[in-house]
Amino acid sequence: MVIRPIRKGEGEALLELVRALADSHDSLEHFTATAPDLEAALFCEGPIVGCLVAEYGGQIVGCAIWHRSFSTFRGKDVMYLEDLSMLPAFRRRGVARALLKGVAEAALTNGYPGIYWLVMEWNESARKLYEDIGAEIETGTCYCRIDGKALEKLAA
Amino acid sequence: MVIRPIRKGEGEALLELVRALADSHDSLEHFTATAPDLEAALFCEGPIVGCLVAEYGGQIVGCAIWHRSFSTFRGKDVMYLEDLSMLPAFRRRGVARALLKGVAEAALTNGYPGIYWLVMEWNESARKLYEDIGAEIETGTCYCRIDGKALEKLAA
Repeated sequence: MVIRPIRKGEGEALLELVRALADSHDSLEHFTATAPDLEAALFCEGPIVGCLVAEYGGQIVGCAIWHRSFSTFRGKDVMYLEDLSMLPAFRRRGVARALLKGVAEAALTNGYPGIYWLVMEWNESARKLYEDIGAEIETGTCYCRIDGKALEKLAA
Repeated sequence: MVIRPIRKGEGEALLELVRALADSHDSLEHFTATAPDLEAALFCEGPIVGCLVAEYGGQIVGCAIWHRSFSTFRGKDVMYLEDLSMLPAFRRRGVARALLKGVAEAALTNGYPGIYWLVMEWNESARKLYEDIGAEIETGTCYCRIDGKALEKLAA
């Protein structure tokens, strides 16, 4: 298995992985991304998004997508790990751990002091992995979202 | 009360607000930001961070700090609301709601389809306000962080 940055033209394989993640979180109703959307974000000038893929036997089987974020408590840019996903057939083979190691290397190379991400409380296997790699996990957090008509109403 | 973008030279007032938020979340141990850090992030070339302040009688009494983020499910940039804070003496006066309205206006002006943020489950008054403005709130989320020695060990 090789962990490497994604290359132009691999947007379709990436979309499949991101969609698998949305599906496993029952979030397909919010899923509108396309392969060109993802490639545009990754390969624009001055991107804030980065992506590593896990390649196995010439096939892309997993991905870690992160973006630049900013911590006001630190006063510094940090990395936010947006997605960590693998094809269902490639779960429990160390793909997630290898991708997390790659993301940690990228954080240190780019001078980010820390990596932040979210995990659902019900996702015990993921939580166990994150504890195992040394992450601190804070429970009791709620995720809030406003968009569409509600956003327009608030702004009006 | 006036809601307006922060200006250069107001980093100290902003730092006070961010520190008050860290204090109310028992997170002062993780607090290392300085006023120059915040001004550097806000007033650099191509910033990813933006800030609105609430001014009352010539004094800065509240702030909303957001940054560019990226939603893989949407395939688009979105706004992440990092901090919403006000001086303790100015709570329960509509400052938070006025700032949220300003952030919503900024989102629409800048073409962001949605705003995302986190709230602690114990923070009932904040959750009530967010529900009231039309946000969807998802419980059962955990916040993960890796930094320092653990990050170095993961990358090694």
